[in-house]
Amino acid sequence: MAIKNKDITSRDVDFAKWYTDIVKKADLVDYSSVKGSMIIRPYGYAIWENMVSILDKMFKSHGVLNMQMPMFIPESLLNIEKEHVEGFAPEVAWVTQGGSESLEEKMCVRPTSEVLFCEHFKKIIKSYRDLPLVYNQWCTIVRWEKTTRPFLRSREILWQEGHTMHATEEEAKERTLEMLHVYEDFQKNYLGIPVIIGPKTDQEKFAGASKTYSLEAMMYDGVALQNGTSHYFGNKFASAFGIEFLNKDNKLVTPYQTSWGVTTRMLGALIMVHSDDNGLVLPPKIAPTKVVIIPIGDVNEALNNITTSLKENDITYIVDDSDKSPGFKFAESEVKGYPIRLEIGARDLEKGIVTLVRRDTLEKIEVNIKDNISAKISEVMETMQTDMYEKARKRRDSMLYEASTYEEFKSLAKNKNGFIKVNFCGSANCENKIKDDTGLKSRCILEEEKVNNNCVVCNKKAKYRIFFGKQY
Amino acid sequence: MAIKNKDITSRDVDFAKWYTDIVKKADLVDYSSVKGSMIIRPYGYAIWENMVSILDKMFKSHGVLNMQMPMFIPESLLNIEKEHVEGFAPEVAWVTQGGSESLEEKMCVRPTSEVLFCEHFKKIIKSYRDLPLVYNQWCTIVRWEKTTRPFLRSREILWQEGHTMHATEEEAKERTLEMLHVYEDFQKNYLGIPVIIGPKTDQEKFAGASKTYSLEAMMYDGVALQNGTSHYFGNKFASAFGIEFLNKDNKLVTPYQTSWGVTTRMLGALIMVHSDDNGLVLPPKIAPTKVVIIPIGDVNEALNNITTSLKENDITYIVDDSDKSPGFKFAESEVKGYPIRLEIGARDLEKGIVTLVRRDTLEKIEVNIKDNISAKISEVMETMQTDMYEKARKRRDSMLYEASTYEEFKSLAKNKNGFIKVNFCGSANCENKIKDDTGLKSRCILEEEKVNNNCVVCNKKAKYRIFFGKQY
Repeated sequence: MAIKNKDITSRDVDFAKWYTDIVKKADLVDYSSVKGSMIIRPYGYAIWENMVSILDKMFKSHGVLNMQMPMFIPESLLNIEKEHVEGFAPEVAWVTQGGSESLEEKMCVRPTSEVLFCEHFKKIIKSYRDLPLVYNQWCTIVRWEKTTRPFLRSREILWQEGHTMHATEEEAKERTLEMLHVYEDFQKNYLGIPVIIGPKTDQEKFAGASKTYSLEAMMYDGVALQNGTSHYFGNKFASAFGIEFLNKDNKLVTPYQTSWGVTTRMLGALIMVHSDDNGLVLPPKIAPTKVVIIPIGDVNEALNNITTSLKENDITYIVDDSDKSPGFKFAESEVKGYPIRLEIGARDLEKGIVTLVRRDTLEKIEVNIKDNISAKISEVMETMQTDMYEKARKRRDSMLYEASTYEEFKSLAKNKNGFIKVNFCGSANCENKIKDDTGLKSRCILEEEKVNNNCVVCNKKAKYRIFFGKQY
Repeated sequence: MAIKNKDITSRDVDFAKWYTDIVKKADLVDYSSVKGSMIIRPYGYAIWENMVSILDKMFKSHGVLNMQMPMFIPESLLNIEKEHVEGFAPEVAWVTQGGSESLEEKMCVRPTSEVLFCEHFKKIIKSYRDLPLVYNQWCTIVRWEKTTRPFLRSREILWQEGHTMHATEEEAKERTLEMLHVYEDFQKNYLGIPVIIGPKTDQEKFAGASKTYSLEAMMYDGVALQNGTSHYFGNKFASAFGIEFLNKDNKLVTPYQTSWGVTTRMLGALIMVHSDDNGLVLPPKIAPTKVVIIPIGDVNEALNNITTSLKENDITYIVDDSDKSPGFKFAESEVKGYPIRLEIGARDLEKGIVTLVRRDTLEKIEVNIKDNISAKISEVMETMQTDMYEKARKRRDSMLYEASTYEEFKSLAKNKNGFIKVNFCGSANCENKIKDDTGLKSRCILEEEKVNNNCVVCNKKAKYRIFFGKQY
């Protein structure tokens, strides 16, 4: 990477500042007088729309039905499940006034909608014939965060929340994992983001859940981003809400529940995994505009032929024919992260070539204008998609560590960025000690790995192996 | 219509009760403990998703960019444009508390987002090169209505709001009409709903607008539903917010603005225009599921052939193979409003036929199983789409009246359901008198019609011809 965009702080110098520069300079977000909320600008929103469109198709192929719940939750409804209200009540926005009247009962803007779904499920579930219910909604939620950062931690969050009810424990557990794997598939194959998946510890699970599975992504700086969760509830909420159905033996029993969600936080992950000091780098499959064409000189005929071909092949593109200099346009195209830059120069055309530039490597590829340029672009984008995942995976893997003693753990935590794998007893005491000593929090339990030693902290019998890491 | 669904009140007996029966029995909405809000159930939401998907494509072909604003508006921001705040402040929900803290400044949940867009536009518009800006967001708004009805008047409304800024008055006026015509096209050609379009009177226009164009649809009972609006603002908001740009002559000038929106209310219109005493009737182009197949007896081979063909032709369908009786299934399919019912009976198959039933007319059409059934279904659906619009238009036209004296007007208002056309002076006095005497409100001004007499109320010089009617 020879060029360096002077408007963007280097990520190796100040990662936080680099991140803010990217989201602003690439026109992804803007701020307003609504503190803690963000404006998602058209270019940022187009990326989110692509995420929604792909995920929504995946959900539907898994039998998910979309619907829409109210955005408010009356206080008494939020209060029904004890652990849930303790987890969420401290961070909700309360509506206390409607028009000029004070409300008899205050309502919060939903921080998540388990209680609304439970109230509805209680009304519509009568018999085993009504099950399973596999519902989802795309909506905005509000959590009253003190410190906010665009996409990563915001008072308003765009997300989807799936909520399902099942006749058996087994089926509900399967659904929890099924949706976790849909997320993993999406993040790996569309966002090019490798994730480690597994259950959270009891201390870190969702308020009210029996088990929370998480997708843990590692950012360029070695810090973890929890990039989606899938919860198994058993029948805790269902019992609290008195939801029952007649099973095949004509007995009244309680159903089993799941919920699962991903948010605009995935945009933050996309930036912090792939982007560089020149700006945004987007995996081709998620980029709203695949190609930016920069004509240099009088190249109208070649331009027309190429745009016709791109249109025919459903490859989205823009032409930058403004009166700015080519150098300015190159830099701008890199800030925006269009996967392919196509430079059509009058002099190059005399030699019968156009130049194609990959955004991820900035590699220049000369293409004969007699070749099928759309096919070449598609081929390069496929390679980019795979390469970007592999690059992210290699960097991630190079920052995975293992500690067998607590001294080793503390030394790694102090000197290295990344995740540290340990044997662990699972106690809140040991988890808090790690947090106090190092600032690291548990990421996810590695269910498939065999425990091979005692707990790294207390040296008592370990229950499982688990990753610890700093988190956003 | 020989059959009459006993669970649904007749629309000619009690239209309001009929409407509520339809939305409940067709599984479109449910109620919750959130007063004034509704749950949009999967079947209702699938219709809305179709509307969104079609309209969004239309918008994009008109150069519209989607983005997302915060959902809250600080009180001081809402207060900037005087007429706007007077119109909206009495009907907003106020958030006064975040977590355990009282907010320094209360914020309302957006009832509409002009002020948020203006604040953003002020930051990003510097030069004529930045214009036009043609933005839209799909989101939820809140208006604290006292009396609510599903889809028609609800405290939470799903909608889209377009907001645009232009260098010239002319361009902004053109955009106002361009989007009005997109709505008209959509409602006519997809929803099968005829609309009368034109400006509202000064008394009825949007709070803060220079001119509000409305799409006025007539329901089965002759009552009007305002089914979308497009506003021209001049530069009233832009001036209030101090938005300026350098024009081509390098002078600082104020830009011109529009906004336009349609809501889930269109679902209410869809029901009240087309549905009948047997249930929902959906125009094929907007129906999420085009065909319901009811197999009677052992018809597996024919069923497989037909579903294979439907899949190949992208015709959505469901098979009702439950253990209920055919009669029950027929009634149920009519409640749900699937455009086509395909009855595959073992006895009919011996004669080489299957039966296709049009939901709008309940006409039975025998189809030879050797024929291309998908092609036949597509053909019937095209006819239905046109027929449903024509039927709605004829009924609407049969309830359009004209009054040349006030006595005639009052008599029509008392004895007939529908819209009454009059010559009108445009004064608030005359408009209020009509409202007080008859309960009718102005619908929209007929800009293309020539005034041919004095004002029907005061007999002074008329300014225009206009429709009056009862409204939802």
